[in-house]
Amino acid sequence: MSITILKGTVISAPALGKLEVVEHGFLVAEDGRVSGVFPVLPDRFAGAPVEDFGDALILQSLADLHLHAPQYPILGFGMDLPLLDWLNTYTFPNEARFADLEYAREIYRQLARELIENGTTRVCMFSSLHRQATLILMEELERAGVTGYVGKVNMDRNGIPALQETTGESMSETLLWLEACQDFRYVKPILTPRFTPSCTNELMEFLGKLGMERNLPVQSHLSENEKEIQWVKELHPDCTQYWETYAKYGLWNDRTLMAHCVWSDRRERQAMKDAGVTVVHCADSNQNLCSGTAPVRVMLDEGLQVALGSDMAGGAQLNLFDVTAAAIRASKARRIQDGWETGFLTVAEGWYLGTSAGAAFFGAEPGFSPGNSLHALVLDDHSLPGPLTPAERLERCLYRRQKQPILAVWSEGRKVFEVK
Amino acid sequence: MSITILKGTVISAPALGKLEVVEHGFLVAEDGRVSGVFPVLPDRFAGAPVEDFGDALILQSLADLHLHAPQYPILGFGMDLPLLDWLNTYTFPNEARFADLEYAREIYRQLARELIENGTTRVCMFSSLHRQATLILMEELERAGVTGYVGKVNMDRNGIPALQETTGESMSETLLWLEACQDFRYVKPILTPRFTPSCTNELMEFLGKLGMERNLPVQSHLSENEKEIQWVKELHPDCTQYWETYAKYGLWNDRTLMAHCVWSDRRERQAMKDAGVTVVHCADSNQNLCSGTAPVRVMLDEGLQVALGSDMAGGAQLNLFDVTAAAIRASKARRIQDGWETGFLTVAEGWYLGTSAGAAFFGAEPGFSPGNSLHALVLDDHSLPGPLTPAERLERCLYRRQKQPILAVWSEGRKVFEVK
Repeated sequence: MSITILKGTVISAPALGKLEVVEHGFLVAEDGRVSGVFPVLPDRFAGAPVEDFGDALILQSLADLHLHAPQYPILGFGMDLPLLDWLNTYTFPNEARFADLEYAREIYRQLARELIENGTTRVCMFSSLHRQATLILMEELERAGVTGYVGKVNMDRNGIPALQETTGESMSETLLWLEACQDFRYVKPILTPRFTPSCTNELMEFLGKLGMERNLPVQSHLSENEKEIQWVKELHPDCTQYWETYAKYGLWNDRTLMAHCVWSDRRERQAMKDAGVTVVHCADSNQNLCSGTAPVRVMLDEGLQVALGSDMAGGAQLNLFDVTAAAIRASKARRIQDGWETGFLTVAEGWYLGTSAGAAFFGAEPGFSPGNSLHALVLDDHSLPGPLTPAERLERCLYRRQKQPILAVWSEGRKVFEVK
Repeated sequence: MSITILKGTVISAPALGKLEVVEHGFLVAEDGRVSGVFPVLPDRFAGAPVEDFGDALILQSLADLHLHAPQYPILGFGMDLPLLDWLNTYTFPNEARFADLEYAREIYRQLARELIENGTTRVCMFSSLHRQATLILMEELERAGVTGYVGKVNMDRNGIPALQETTGESMSETLLWLEACQDFRYVKPILTPRFTPSCTNELMEFLGKLGMERNLPVQSHLSENEKEIQWVKELHPDCTQYWETYAKYGLWNDRTLMAHCVWSDRRERQAMKDAGVTVVHCADSNQNLCSGTAPVRVMLDEGLQVALGSDMAGGAQLNLFDVTAAAIRASKARRIQDGWETGFLTVAEGWYLGTSAGAAFFGAEPGFSPGNSLHALVLDDHSLPGPLTPAERLERCLYRRQKQPILAVWSEGRKVFEVK
């Protein structure tokens, strides 16, 4: 049996809005699964090697539940354009480049490394429609130590000539891709209809059936922008609301992720709650593209499951510390917009969303619960002035840029990054 | 005569919304003053040493026109509290510590270094009420190469026991401080009534007269938060609007900076425009403290002078790249709040505000105009994927964290930072 013992100031998010702190504590994992966090090392671990990080913070690593891998090369620019112009100017032409497998290899290798260095160990990710590039993405994530779900995108309408499949191609490529996915251990497939306007009804029906037959999770976009919602209404006049276009094909259940949900009203939110759909809040993207500000505080009050996504490259930030801070700030923008009648996300709540809430989609219990596979990082803030409480230090690390704050990362029990 | 020649991709902001790009260009300064930006090195500089930064970006350095130096130790946390609680819990108690000069020296040295390393070479800064700590701050800024204005804070009411002066003390300490300021070359004094609720009428009158007699600039806060505005109304029932409490004492002219102006309506904005007052927009702070979202896009349309401030530590970010991105994002939040009826800040506009607009308060012409003293930085983004246009690269550097993007910095003609 292999034992991992990390010593430092351990902070975890055991519940929404709650931080659990053990100063000079020991985070222990056996065979990659958390045994517990202890203020004093239990006798049964005496003699086992301890990795002592002094006063550094030991935290859960982060989960990014919505991002577009092929948009990595366009991350951080083009933000002056509205959504549809941005898609046509930057996103689609760039995504089309992933027919080139050498390009895909180079970009995805760099992306996977950047994710791990920033402490993102779990993802739910859109690839492009290219089957082979998607497999390369999965290989590179697995090699770097990123775990989670990746989806070959399905889009058989409303793309551009260089980026669209026929319905038949989309189906057969999806089946071939799923077959090839069996070789991966840590990165699994997720069905990924790009969004309703990108998929014919025939394709949606196929994907819904496939998902049910093979028990596959699903990710897509929902109610991001008012024009998009209007478009969906025109495409599906039989549906009262956007979410129904997924539900009617069986793409709406407790293994479904819906990104954005900026404009989801009470009825649509209730449908998510009833089905157990997880909302992926992408605050930075929604602000950059002027889509709107999702009522995330209200969603939490209503008991919806909410996690965070960078939405690279509508979001301009890949680092989940930035993404979490963006969610907190956006909740305040929403509070202002609501005339101070709604609350905002506290730091502890934001941190929960970026860690435990995202990990829940993969079956993890909140915080460093015993039995969870070890997903953790070590954060160094010694160059910043002190002394502060651990919670203040965590908050400051969310907001402040530092050169190399992350010293080491564990993903699914394995150490996958370390500053030498 | 000393000649500085920097070679790289030179980008400057010659006007609001405009970027001027000279690829593989030469930025030349003689005796610390800009001679010009040239696509080909003019003959008259032949033989002079060229610092060749390859493909790196050569940019104007940044100006932070509102920040509180003694809040450096509390930068980046406490953001869950509303303004007045935050002041009493964190700000005032921490500011009181600057009676300790050894503490002041240590903190201010670190602050000055961080400013320069992040490319902020011009500031208008609040110190605390402590005369000696203020002089230490000025020394440390001058030593590090930061230029601009620093103000000993005046506050003779509504502080806490550990952080308040009598009216007499405030006056005499201000006079002593001004005397001692004559020793500084690059850092100059600015009158700094904290804000109307902190200063008795007697003190305001004294400061107004002093400013006029000695031709001193003035900085303060205006219309940050609705409760504060109400409070000011109660304190000055003779004034219709907040700004009049400054104007009636002669603290309202074209050398006046007013931070925030979140709630300034058309009349108050007109008063700023008429007097030539500069608005310092502190987007991150306003969002963190839920103060509101300043109508910065409208202010620019109306022809007001607007520059940017980090407002450390209401703002959680000291880095002006972050602050500029925050202003752009906030303008989009405001657009959303306004039902998409107002515009947003483009990247080029944001960059102008962070550079040329701030520099204008110090008499500089926009961009790298000939005659300006050299304030510049070299920005490295080679580790990010390319190729991009120079403008796209600049935008990406605003949004993305990098480990050490700034390679070198010049301030008032002198090289003040360089990565070895």
